[in-house]
Amino acid sequence: MKPYAQMSAAELSALKNELESAFSKHKASGKKLNMTRGVPSDEQLALCNEMLTCLTADDYKSANGTDCRNYGGLDGIPEVKKIFADLLDLTPDEVIVGGNSSLALMFDNVSVNVSHGVRDGKPWQSQGQVKFLCPSPGYDRHFTICNYFHIDMIPVAMGEDGPDMDTVEKLVSSDPMIKGIWCVPKYSNPTGIVYSEETVKRFAKLKPAADDFRIYWDNAYAFHGLGSSNEEIPNIIRLCEEAGNPNMAYVFSSFSKVSFAGASITCMASSKSNCEYIKKRLTAQTIGPDKLNQLRHARFFKDAQGVKTHMVKHAAVLQPKFKLVSDTLKRELDGLGIAKWTEPSGGYFVSFDSLEGCAKRIVALCAEAGVALTPAGATYPNGSDPKDSNIRIAPTCPPLTELGEALDIFCVAVKLASAEKYLG
Amino acid sequence: MKPYAQMSAAELSALKNELESAFSKHKASGKKLNMTRGVPSDEQLALCNEMLTCLTADDYKSANGTDCRNYGGLDGIPEVKKIFADLLDLTPDEVIVGGNSSLALMFDNVSVNVSHGVRDGKPWQSQGQVKFLCPSPGYDRHFTICNYFHIDMIPVAMGEDGPDMDTVEKLVSSDPMIKGIWCVPKYSNPTGIVYSEETVKRFAKLKPAADDFRIYWDNAYAFHGLGSSNEEIPNIIRLCEEAGNPNMAYVFSSFSKVSFAGASITCMASSKSNCEYIKKRLTAQTIGPDKLNQLRHARFFKDAQGVKTHMVKHAAVLQPKFKLVSDTLKRELDGLGIAKWTEPSGGYFVSFDSLEGCAKRIVALCAEAGVALTPAGATYPNGSDPKDSNIRIAPTCPPLTELGEALDIFCVAVKLASAEKYLG
Repeated sequence: MKPYAQMSAAELSALKNELESAFSKHKASGKKLNMTRGVPSDEQLALCNEMLTCLTADDYKSANGTDCRNYGGLDGIPEVKKIFADLLDLTPDEVIVGGNSSLALMFDNVSVNVSHGVRDGKPWQSQGQVKFLCPSPGYDRHFTICNYFHIDMIPVAMGEDGPDMDTVEKLVSSDPMIKGIWCVPKYSNPTGIVYSEETVKRFAKLKPAADDFRIYWDNAYAFHGLGSSNEEIPNIIRLCEEAGNPNMAYVFSSFSKVSFAGASITCMASSKSNCEYIKKRLTAQTIGPDKLNQLRHARFFKDAQGVKTHMVKHAAVLQPKFKLVSDTLKRELDGLGIAKWTEPSGGYFVSFDSLEGCAKRIVALCAEAGVALTPAGATYPNGSDPKDSNIRIAPTCPPLTELGEALDIFCVAVKLASAEKYLG
Repeated sequence: MKPYAQMSAAELSALKNELESAFSKHKASGKKLNMTRGVPSDEQLALCNEMLTCLTADDYKSANGTDCRNYGGLDGIPEVKKIFADLLDLTPDEVIVGGNSSLALMFDNVSVNVSHGVRDGKPWQSQGQVKFLCPSPGYDRHFTICNYFHIDMIPVAMGEDGPDMDTVEKLVSSDPMIKGIWCVPKYSNPTGIVYSEETVKRFAKLKPAADDFRIYWDNAYAFHGLGSSNEEIPNIIRLCEEAGNPNMAYVFSSFSKVSFAGASITCMASSKSNCEYIKKRLTAQTIGPDKLNQLRHARFFKDAQGVKTHMVKHAAVLQPKFKLVSDTLKRELDGLGIAKWTEPSGGYFVSFDSLEGCAKRIVALCAEAGVALTPAGATYPNGSDPKDSNIRIAPTCPPLTELGEALDIFCVAVKLASAEKYLG
């Protein structure tokens, strides 16, 4: 089939009729299919079922003798601190182990910087209207945190190598009210790109106008390659140190997509002095995270290598799903000039760009036919995609057959919305 | 022995020499004994060891079919919401299940009211200097939260029936910057008293000058009676409703001293509209608490009655320890006119009052002899006990023999500090 842009009105009309008829059939089938969020499938969760039973009634002490059943310990048992430190190429005293939600670590960290300020800093809220840079498309829940704390969000374009660093450097060095930037440096949500070495180095060498500017480095997919190998990016904390910005980066990591999505362990990592500062707050805030769940993770994974080995099993489940997305989009949409999409080598998403002004229509059509997608615009600050073209496809949760059905419906919706657009 | 106040200087001097000699022997024995905090003993933790293994590799779904391994669910699985609701005599939609730390629920709640305000309210921080009433002696970690958020603390005297309600009523109805009060209504920390029905009713009928005044009702020891029966207090949420203050109370409850201190489940309860408001924040803050740990609790306890039955086992372990405290203090200190103490029927503490100006000296003497106590003053806002007389005794963690040794040393320290005081 030729590109839509080269079709006559008559051809487009005929095509539209055909697509509407196909769409009606899909609608009539009454399917309920979900591709909204980056959720692991049953098959992936089952990879860890042994963790449900890996503790015994007399196995509750950590390596340093701590009784994990009782109170005590704000930043993690030694064996789990070591696993995270080894995975992130850091030392255990640069790691604070959290509960089951890295989102909570990020939210709390922003909350405290707003109300109390970074270490040796003034409360952000006492300095004026706080702003964050938001590489977009990006992760909607980062933007929700900014919204919650009334932080202005400045979108920055995402490229193949990461955010547009010329813009980042210019803004960060000129505006002291820019206090943070959200980054998903590996297998980015939703584009799947991996920040280049050059991008990471430029981040570390930023010269912020604000002393209390911080990089929120959400390394959510640090171990989540789809092939047998995992891409590596430079160590942002070490590079920041070397560049004379030792306290500039907060790194977040999570086992939500390693063990059990709702019952995992997480960590944040930063300079020792940042960690000391954060632990003071934790003393007021909590009795500390669940150490028994940490112990379960230590018993099941044993060490950092155990995590890496386990991630290969996840990749084996996920790779066919991403291949199906790629194959289907290629088969149905290639050469039509109505869409482009990413081919990620890791992570949980495919980022899809329709013709301008079509994303909302595509998502609405899919909803009519029983396919739930992330709302169009969600990948932009304030849910507002200026081109109304980006859609995040989350193929991990549905079984392959359902995913195939959902993708077929999606492609019809894309074509239909595009034909509608050309017909005006 | 006669009261110290009736002794001559010579008698006191002789006594002091005798006590110093006894104290030196204790010191020389090189014991290390800890009565600092309300921590469950090994024996208590072992009561729940079955919870370490109560899930099997195919048991991960809650009553409503939720896969507890995966994402989803902000406020608890149905069976656990029901257990808390039944225990607190509320409905499940008045309950939000949290993670393993009720302190975190309280901290977050204060944090959000400071920064965003209560439901339909203005941020506390936008209104001026926020104040909380702090019935004292009270729980040091409540005071730490106030300190963290720069909230002024106004101590209110604690009596046998709860806080001095005349003062509470007068202050709350006259000062709109009083936004909260900390309460531990059952087996209070540290005095062990239970609020009377009259006190609870007066709380519910408060007429605060501030629309956004809130009662922080930390029912930490709700099921923690020492005898075979558990005292009951009226339902603050229902009474507030009836009094036309439906949103005034936040109730906090915890299984930290029911299951595993560091790996339990907790909840906050309030009006449905408060819960709806709080859940909006949770959507921005977290992926939700660990549902597998909730499921473990549901499997182990089964229902509210299961919790109550289990608490009788805790009481059987704790009762002899509290009896030893009572017997020892009576035997060593009765009739000397140098101390009084509480005889709680539940909870985790005995509150001890020395002669004025002696508490710090007693704690210091104990430290010299290897007995660690909660710092004197910790039970008052800003760590400052105006009479320097209150000491919190935490007898739950040490085994009986060690507890006996620690109490012997404590009593010598009390007598020695008192003799020193009378000698001037």
